[in-house]
Amino acid sequence: MSEAITHFKELCSPIWNLYSVRSLLYWDQQVLMPGGGAAARANQIAALEKVCHGMLTDTHFKSSLEKAEESASEDIDKRYLRSARRAYDLASKLPPRLVEERARATSLAVEAWVQAKKNNDFKFFLPHLRNVFDLTREVAEHKGYASHPYDALIDEYEPGMTTQKIDALFGGILPPLVQLVQAIAAARPISRKILQQAFPFEGQHEFSRYLLEQIGFDFERGRLDQSAHPFCSSSTGSDVRMTDRLDEWLVTMSIFGSLHEGGHGLYEQGSPPEWNSTPLAGGCSLGIHESQSRMWENFVGRSLPFWQAHFGRMRSIFPQQLWGYSAEDMFHAVNYVEPSFIRVEADEVTYTLHIVMRYELERDMITRALDPADLPEAWNEKMEKTLGIRPPTDTLGCLQDIHWSDGLIGYFPTYSIGNVVAAQLWRKIRKDMVHLDEDIARGNNLGLLNWLRHNLHRFASSVLPEEALFEATGGEELDHQPFVDYLWDKYSGLYEIQRP
Amino acid sequence: MSEAITHFKELCSPIWNLYSVRSLLYWDQQVLMPGGGAAARANQIAALEKVCHGMLTDTHFKSSLEKAEESASEDIDKRYLRSARRAYDLASKLPPRLVEERARATSLAVEAWVQAKKNNDFKFFLPHLRNVFDLTREVAEHKGYASHPYDALIDEYEPGMTTQKIDALFGGILPPLVQLVQAIAAARPISRKILQQAFPFEGQHEFSRYLLEQIGFDFERGRLDQSAHPFCSSSTGSDVRMTDRLDEWLVTMSIFGSLHEGGHGLYEQGSPPEWNSTPLAGGCSLGIHESQSRMWENFVGRSLPFWQAHFGRMRSIFPQQLWGYSAEDMFHAVNYVEPSFIRVEADEVTYTLHIVMRYELERDMITRALDPADLPEAWNEKMEKTLGIRPPTDTLGCLQDIHWSDGLIGYFPTYSIGNVVAAQLWRKIRKDMVHLDEDIARGNNLGLLNWLRHNLHRFASSVLPEEALFEATGGEELDHQPFVDYLWDKYSGLYEIQRP
Repeated sequence: MSEAITHFKELCSPIWNLYSVRSLLYWDQQVLMPGGGAAARANQIAALEKVCHGMLTDTHFKSSLEKAEESASEDIDKRYLRSARRAYDLASKLPPRLVEERARATSLAVEAWVQAKKNNDFKFFLPHLRNVFDLTREVAEHKGYASHPYDALIDEYEPGMTTQKIDALFGGILPPLVQLVQAIAAARPISRKILQQAFPFEGQHEFSRYLLEQIGFDFERGRLDQSAHPFCSSSTGSDVRMTDRLDEWLVTMSIFGSLHEGGHGLYEQGSPPEWNSTPLAGGCSLGIHESQSRMWENFVGRSLPFWQAHFGRMRSIFPQQLWGYSAEDMFHAVNYVEPSFIRVEADEVTYTLHIVMRYELERDMITRALDPADLPEAWNEKMEKTLGIRPPTDTLGCLQDIHWSDGLIGYFPTYSIGNVVAAQLWRKIRKDMVHLDEDIARGNNLGLLNWLRHNLHRFASSVLPEEALFEATGGEELDHQPFVDYLWDKYSGLYEIQRP
Repeated sequence: MSEAITHFKELCSPIWNLYSVRSLLYWDQQVLMPGGGAAARANQIAALEKVCHGMLTDTHFKSSLEKAEESASEDIDKRYLRSARRAYDLASKLPPRLVEERARATSLAVEAWVQAKKNNDFKFFLPHLRNVFDLTREVAEHKGYASHPYDALIDEYEPGMTTQKIDALFGGILPPLVQLVQAIAAARPISRKILQQAFPFEGQHEFSRYLLEQIGFDFERGRLDQSAHPFCSSSTGSDVRMTDRLDEWLVTMSIFGSLHEGGHGLYEQGSPPEWNSTPLAGGCSLGIHESQSRMWENFVGRSLPFWQAHFGRMRSIFPQQLWGYSAEDMFHAVNYVEPSFIRVEADEVTYTLHIVMRYELERDMITRALDPADLPEAWNEKMEKTLGIRPPTDTLGCLQDIHWSDGLIGYFPTYSIGNVVAAQLWRKIRKDMVHLDEDIARGNNLGLLNWLRHNLHRFASSVLPEEALFEATGGEELDHQPFVDYLWDKYSGLYEIQRP
């Protein structure tokens, strides 16, 4: 390794270590920080951002990066530099004042959102929401974009993605999806009686932990806790922390919430430990990340073989609730399709409709086509139009997600990209592993995990999302067809309907 | 405020914010970090130390400090600068390499200590112990000292304290203390039957929380959790986190551990919030800090009025265990004096003997008069000589405390300074508050807390320890006599013995 590269990596080390500390501060704030600590925490996060930003945009950092780029010959060094360059470019476009202000604003907005959601009090949240969107609009202008300010925002989460590409993707998915929702609405409903019962918290927590162990999550390098909104936060691949949310009358929330966050967690734990706290560590984009959570949550977790393997354990934890029921009953119930208010509780089919409306709303708030004060009304109208239902409260409507308070704008579409990528990977995996269903039905998920480790996880952030997809699928680009086919195949069987 | 001072405070802000983040990383590591995260955490802490050290020792920081010192006219600014100057002087004497190396070494040593203590495996810990002492010796040489390398170490925790002063302090305390221990050994023992029972964890936790609320700890600005070694870690005065340790058969550990850490916590919560994450925040020295924990643990918590107020609640939590017992029985039992192995479980009288032996051992390991490999034997011999008992395992001996693994050398004497200061404060408080016993017996601790808030807490780190003591006592210097008198007065009554 050249001296220039060694020197540059030494410059990067404290920066990426502090970034990994920031993840922990965030987790702590969500999971266990006492309420009175909010203002001081906002200052801590702002200071951390400012210090990192200062180190990253220092002229010495830039000249060292350029020297390293000139001398790099090994492929892995080039990848390291590409990732560091991207961070440098993103950071150097934003004035330090804005970075700090946004960090403080979002930290306070998250606290306000928790209160507002609890009290169904959108007005209490509104000034924070407005402030976050004002600052985010400023961010987009500083970052620059070719045709749409939203492009500048989504690129941060999904390098190379644009408003135009998202419009095309949703354009390809929506017609067959709407057809499917309508066909299901007209079909004979399947029973979900098995789920319409109370499941005590303790058992839910036990079963979640069991499932996470079954899919290969390593609790020596991670934790599972509870928070208002489930998330996975990886300080490093050796310390991956997930949360879920428990509701006595909605056992699926903890089951699929845990599998979902577990999918994120497995991807992070698959990042090579020697890359911890470097530009090569962790997931390469939110869309690719989401492909992993969706795969374990839906493609695996809502399949018949999975419940053939694990229903027995669930019944032993909840004997009273599950007496007389079978794995098939569970398989049917967890694939019940019905328009509902809460995104994180939505079924696999209607889920994408939740994403499309959020995408349209945040895009319009960025262009000022929609004023934040009008969000509740706009939300409720879209909900009624696309899903046919109107939320009775903002808590069940526009206050349900943490994203906007946290400044995560341009983030929602990555959930749908995740579904699409997951379907492409799933098609390839089924070709490579002819006994996949039998393995999963026997409770053996190791083959699948190893496939993902080998073909995706181990590359961590050393690849761009399109490279990751290309590598794992043996040459494919982003393609909505496998996702549409997967949904139609699965649900036409479940609901005994014909694809037109 | 002059421009020079405003500018200097802006330089300090990120540094002290990152220091407050470091406290949180430490807490997280002790309380809930998964084991696999240890190496990455060590790197994070080292990076944080390095960045802070870099900012603090930057030439621009120094020149800004000097300019601010020239222009300071307001008293509070002068105090701010004095505290910042002390941090600068401490940091600039140590090469960055040493700061980083020590941070990493202690982080790994703490992990090793947890294992070694669990497995009674001193040999596993020895290389870490040796490494920490080697690095600490190097630290002392860099800091410099007039007559004894240990002076350079204790000064970090107790500004102005020296090896000579500690020898004088212990010289004044030891003879009357040894007399008291001997007199008690010859007296009729008091009963502690009430404590020789199992108390379920859940009730212990409930009672600890109740007691902390009773002494005025604000759970909106703090937490209570569990860890291997109880501690109090204040990220800021708005986020004060304490831990205790539960043992079913030793209910006093959670009661007095909580009151002890609660005393630290109250001092931190009394630091003015506008000083959060600045050089003025938090306690002014470990000795003054310990005066607060000892006061609530012993002077209040082991007094008859305290149990007259709270025994009823304890009995309602543990009706089976406490049926037929009285507040007086509890008061007697918690003041049972007996030589024992574990410092944190020791009674008020023998406690100081535990401190003296630790002080002598660490002082001798610093001067190389004692080799770390010989620590277990030296420990056991001193224990036998001063307390008449020999630990059967190193877990009950030299592996019991976290301090040496964590590089906290020069720290132990501050526990005894705390007892001495607490006794001086207590004498003054009893003069100022003639109804103190009646208040405490009625469960009203607010008067005492307000006295401490007004006379000590609100000054936080704006004062030096000798100034804090002078201010609170109305003009006293460190004096061992009130502590000796307090012990003799209390225990001659309890054990019906005469002071010679």
